[in-house]
Amino acid sequence: MSDTLSSSPTLVSAAMLAIGDELLSGRTKDKNIGHLADLLTLSGIDLKEVRIVADEEDAVVEALNALRARYDYVFTSGGIGPTHDDITADAVSKAFEVPCIHDPEAMRLLAEMYERREMEFTEARQRMARMPQGATHIANPVSTAPGFVIGNVHVMAGVPQVFQAMMDNVLPTLKSGSKVLSRAIACPYGEGDIGTPLAAVQKAHPETSIGSYPKYDGKRFSTELVVRARDPQVLDAAAQAVADMIANIDGTRIADNPTADA
Amino acid sequence: MSDTLSSSPTLVSAAMLAIGDELLSGRTKDKNIGHLADLLTLSGIDLKEVRIVADEEDAVVEALNALRARYDYVFTSGGIGPTHDDITADAVSKAFEVPCIHDPEAMRLLAEMYERREMEFTEARQRMARMPQGATHIANPVSTAPGFVIGNVHVMAGVPQVFQAMMDNVLPTLKSGSKVLSRAIACPYGEGDIGTPLAAVQKAHPETSIGSYPKYDGKRFSTELVVRARDPQVLDAAAQAVADMIANIDGTRIADNPTADA
Repeated sequence: MSDTLSSSPTLVSAAMLAIGDELLSGRTKDKNIGHLADLLTLSGIDLKEVRIVADEEDAVVEALNALRARYDYVFTSGGIGPTHDDITADAVSKAFEVPCIHDPEAMRLLAEMYERREMEFTEARQRMARMPQGATHIANPVSTAPGFVIGNVHVMAGVPQVFQAMMDNVLPTLKSGSKVLSRAIACPYGEGDIGTPLAAVQKAHPETSIGSYPKYDGKRFSTELVVRARDPQVLDAAAQAVADMIANIDGTRIADNPTADA
Repeated sequence: MSDTLSSSPTLVSAAMLAIGDELLSGRTKDKNIGHLADLLTLSGIDLKEVRIVADEEDAVVEALNALRARYDYVFTSGGIGPTHDDITADAVSKAFEVPCIHDPEAMRLLAEMYERREMEFTEARQRMARMPQGATHIANPVSTAPGFVIGNVHVMAGVPQVFQAMMDNVLPTLKSGSKVLSRAIACPYGEGDIGTPLAAVQKAHPETSIGSYPKYDGKRFSTELVVRARDPQVLDAAAQAVADMIANIDGTRIADNPTADA
């Protein structure tokens, strides 16, 4: 009866599966996880889990089936190029128990592109048209070969520029969650100085999630405190409580002891 | 009877579990996964899987139990600081079904350090001495609060400088696998130009793992080919075959078509 009762926020969850031996050997430092995390946070979608697995069919199938059953969306990166170690299309098909086919529309797009460029549409390049039967395309404005969507799984390239271009096309198609609002509050003290009062603030503001992120500049620790909530008033109240907490700490004993907390 | 039969190489496998809401929100871009991957590759240990999960006990327990049963080693980062959202020690204890205690030796180390610095050893700071009963320490030269080892699980801080310092102490304690040798070969062509012959090279050299990593500089694709093997002669033969393959490609039709392959 009260108009102050708001409806429950929409929670939309997601996972990422990054595929590639090169990520696990250290040869390539992943850039897609952080990019996806930023995009999903802006869209109010909770990235709950990330896995990185090798270019091995069993590993991809198992991880994909675990993640797609549990979360609203799964986003994959890597393994959809033209070489023998690109096994993502086969693995995704196997996970969904459908044939992996040379998609006719993808074949047409690629054939046209290679003809326009007077390049041979080799058997290897034709591999880039393969996807699970029934999948729909994710357009690739950088290099034509499409990603694809099947069920709640979005399959994209591992090259960051292509991954990002594909995600720009995917984002408008996703249902957004209630956006999580956040407020970052710089704290000049290490976590050991604020842990106890901060826990009290968190307890007093149960509808928020308060994160504490230690920073170390080589000489001293400080902390970035981040208050998150879906309701702006709830956020304001908790952020104010955090700021008050910081103001009430006696910093005089701390300043000379820079490296005490991890 | 033949002395040309070599013993089977020692295979040592590992997984990483990175713990922290901030990695999933995009606020922090992980630096520990790539560092660990580099170190393990140098040590001949195969990093087979990485997971990133939130600061939620159930998520940590489930991932840890899955990974520690499957791989020789598990390395974790994050969640061992003094604040309320640092739940790794509790979660690891729960996974191993042992009590999470204030470790006496860690309490002594921390108490001494804070006394030396004339800082209060607060309840929050005492949280950093918590670990599963029976765990052994990983020394922390940066900020004293130790990481710990229980079973095959190595629990370390998330702050990269501390994670790296802890790993420097962990590495000499690990059994090394047969080191995987690798040879990187720059290839000026995109994957579509080399996919078919490269697959033939891989097939002809089954004891190697040949990876193909597309690069895109904003204008054109090229490829880095990486041959990996445990036997140096096997590596040499496969690397030579890859170089020959590149030399035999007719590049004249390719140079004007820079962005054709993903």
